[in-house]
Amino acid sequence: MADERDSIYHVDGDLVPASEATVSVDDRGFRYGDAAFETLRAYGGTVFEWGAHLERLEATCEALSLAHGLSGDDLRGRIDETLAANDLEDAYVRLSITRGVQPGKLTPRPEVDPTVVIYVKPLPRGGVDGDPVWDDLATVRTVETRRIPEEAIPAAAKTHNYLNGILARAELRAESEDGAGEADEALMFDLDGYVAEGATSNLCFVQEGVLHTPTTDADVLPGITRRIVLELTAEADIPVREGRYELADVLAADEAFLTNRTWELRPIATLDGGMIGSGPITERLSRLYDERVEQTCYE
Amino acid sequence: MADERDSIYHVDGDLVPASEATVSVDDRGFRYGDAAFETLRAYGGTVFEWGAHLERLEATCEALSLAHGLSGDDLRGRIDETLAANDLEDAYVRLSITRGVQPGKLTPRPEVDPTVVIYVKPLPRGGVDGDPVWDDLATVRTVETRRIPEEAIPAAAKTHNYLNGILARAELRAESEDGAGEADEALMFDLDGYVAEGATSNLCFVQEGVLHTPTTDADVLPGITRRIVLELTAEADIPVREGRYELADVLAADEAFLTNRTWELRPIATLDGGMIGSGPITERLSRLYDERVEQTCYE
Repeated sequence: MADERDSIYHVDGDLVPASEATVSVDDRGFRYGDAAFETLRAYGGTVFEWGAHLERLEATCEALSLAHGLSGDDLRGRIDETLAANDLEDAYVRLSITRGVQPGKLTPRPEVDPTVVIYVKPLPRGGVDGDPVWDDLATVRTVETRRIPEEAIPAAAKTHNYLNGILARAELRAESEDGAGEADEALMFDLDGYVAEGATSNLCFVQEGVLHTPTTDADVLPGITRRIVLELTAEADIPVREGRYELADVLAADEAFLTNRTWELRPIATLDGGMIGSGPITERLSRLYDERVEQTCYE
Repeated sequence: MADERDSIYHVDGDLVPASEATVSVDDRGFRYGDAAFETLRAYGGTVFEWGAHLERLEATCEALSLAHGLSGDDLRGRIDETLAANDLEDAYVRLSITRGVQPGKLTPRPEVDPTVVIYVKPLPRGGVDGDPVWDDLATVRTVETRRIPEEAIPAAAKTHNYLNGILARAELRAESEDGAGEADEALMFDLDGYVAEGATSNLCFVQEGVLHTPTTDADVLPGITRRIVLELTAEADIPVREGRYELADVLAADEAFLTNRTWELRPIATLDGGMIGSGPITERLSRLYDERVEQTCYE
């Protein structure tokens, strides 16, 4: 925690020490989780895939009718300032935009004075000479908590309403108290019983040379790492299919991995105790991903 | 807003002016909406139905695996201190307990250093000599946003993840921009298309002398005002039925009203433009409710 308490945040336009990084309890981000966010990675001082993150952030704000009025350059500038203030080039970055303080209660008002919060922390170097942030392949368990359906909250919106994922992760803790080691990720089903996604990751698996991943036409967050993996898969002429899958499909896979911004590609060691592991396609895609990061950010 | 900015909050054990009422941006209440809350009313200095609120708060914390370690007397004491500091006897009270700051990211840890936030604001006197907080009967519109199902987040949990209701209310705003006046409440359906509840209220309606309300066996928050109304209905020998209803059932009602802590019983003037209004059973239950408040808090 030492590094976190000493670090510098960007809050509502100012660089402030962690101990002073606060928001009003009247901020709708606190009261209601009424806020959009993105988790990003900086490699060698460059925010990877900034354009894609900005696009998804705007999609989230559009879904929330949150017209924050800030330009992408403004937001990118605040991230760069925060990285510089913390003397970081390789970092995890979290950017949040809340609807700020408004008069009245639940009903949102069109005039928004947003609160922007940026948090960074050091990560290892990425790219071809880099190290993954994880030590071991992932252990994954399926959970009872179902993914919130599109009809209740748009699946593409990345917001501070994260209890669905927290409840999923809390199930892992309860399970580990029963004797098993705590799994790294909770895999959620949608309401129809199809495999959706992890609490903070998308799922990919390989079966007979084809890469499969749950479609974002269902209740699945369109992860940016997931999208890049699909691009790399196409470039490498690996057949790909986006669909709706049952647990048995994943358990029968030759290879499987999780994707998110921080983990990049993280192979799945076991799912509900059944061995899966990495393999040639996962390794090839991981190398291609590292090359993309290297070319985009370090060269 | 003047009264809000001058008021005194109770934050993390201390009474502080509104301008200093803040939480860390690392607080899980801000990051993830990882917090339980209750909205309460004080009448004549007494918190109405404190026992019921404490019970529901504990049910929410149980659902979130949030072991805050604070006694009911401690929490009640903080509310009383806040009311006294603001020199208020008749007031709206909001009490929140977050999971606080924890190391790591999404996965919650069992050791909790909770953040408790209490906010109060003046309301008119209640009881038999009181005035409702609302000026007019409610205009209500149904919305597209569906209530989050139990399988994703327990319906009985009252948390800072309130985007579902915000999206519902935002639909009213979008509608009013098309020319109609903005409705007071958004009525949500569950995923099966049955009427569930308002964004911040429960629904009751009267048909041929029978009081009907959507069952909490479905995806409906067990409102405390709703429960009291059901008790009063039984005491008054009015037949009652909890069930699952279609929109047409409500539109055909002789009387209808919304319930929540602040509104108490608020008759529905119109639903999707169709007239409903108050009537003898709504008026009788409102009077019985006022008497309950009078006897419990003012005598």
